[in-house]
Amino acid sequence: MDVKRFRVVKKEIRVLGIDDGVFVPQKKGKATIVGVVYRGGLWLDGVMSTQIEVDGLDATEKIASMILDSPHYPQLRVIMLNGLTFAGFNVVDIKKLYEKTDLPIIAISREKPDLNEIKKALENLPNKDKRWNAMKNAGEIFKVDMGKSGGKIYAQMAGIAQKDALKIIKVTSTRSYIPEALRVAHIIASGLTSLRESSKH
Amino acid sequence: MDVKRFRVVKKEIRVLGIDDGVFVPQKKGKATIVGVVYRGGLWLDGVMSTQIEVDGLDATEKIASMILDSPHYPQLRVIMLNGLTFAGFNVVDIKKLYEKTDLPIIAISREKPDLNEIKKALENLPNKDKRWNAMKNAGEIFKVDMGKSGGKIYAQMAGIAQKDALKIIKVTSTRSYIPEALRVAHIIASGLTSLRESSKH
Repeated sequence: MDVKRFRVVKKEIRVLGIDDGVFVPQKKGKATIVGVVYRGGLWLDGVMSTQIEVDGLDATEKIASMILDSPHYPQLRVIMLNGLTFAGFNVVDIKKLYEKTDLPIIAISREKPDLNEIKKALENLPNKDKRWNAMKNAGEIFKVDMGKSGGKIYAQMAGIAQKDALKIIKVTSTRSYIPEALRVAHIIASGLTSLRESSKH
Repeated sequence: MDVKRFRVVKKEIRVLGIDDGVFVPQKKGKATIVGVVYRGGLWLDGVMSTQIEVDGLDATEKIASMILDSPHYPQLRVIMLNGLTFAGFNVVDIKKLYEKTDLPIIAISREKPDLNEIKKALENLPNKDKRWNAMKNAGEIFKVDMGKSGGKIYAQMAGIAQKDALKIIKVTSTRSYIPEALRVAHIIASGLTSLRESSKH
């Protein structure tokens, strides 16, 4: 699989950060996915959203459509995900998301993903092989040291070289150990959705 | 009415910017109100939301409750509103909002409010006197010159001296002619609500 090359990473690079909102776990229903367009780690440029099934299989497709349908799409340079699983175990296949959007994908976690734990949890779900394949497709887990203070995060990527992904993570993490687009996507998604709302779907 | 004094306006002053989402005009229903907590004009710290009636009379009360119920409330120093009317002609009485929250209020418009136009529009609505009194309660309309490039906005205020309000507007308007909290509240409120959603309420 080829990768996008970044000759330089501008401080104002346009990135999309994606996180999920509040939902009732293990219960049939939908969860809101919020995408936040950020100029590097500096300022917010736009928001977008979609709905996916709790523990469903539609995260990759719905997130791809959200991105492709957005007026911001032509300007975006990279997609960042808060982990690989959304709305429970609705797994994003980052290789497929890269193919569908033609944009490099970086999935970031604060904790190192425990693949044995995840494999065990998937046993209780339908289509466990499909979910597990999407998890494996995310490839190697890289530890990223976030500076003097000892902070570290974990990253998986598709369509981008490791060294470019690291540059983008560092340039965009202006206020915390994670890229600003993901920090803000988390605040908006968890702050503006509620159990009351998710139960309406 | 007394005012809050600001000895200095810190670059990281905590402000709340409030705007409304998409709604069906002149039709019974609700609109989402989004509040965005910003550190000055620098970075986003939180979000909150509530629902008000289209052309209703509950904006002041619902926005006050949203603020008082928020975990961010004790840290907030000033409230900024995108105009005085939300969800159609649901007018915020900024004097009352100041009394209820004990926080200074600054209402900002890109265009000079045309009070004659507004008075005419109110004629078609129930409780027109109550709405008009809330409009009048907002007091003098100040023109604010936003620097060399000739941009200007208009401000009304309660609970704050004009010179302090101007300082806060200038410190927080880092990316455009309007305070960052209001620019971002507008993007979030209009980007994450839709007619489909507002029709559900």
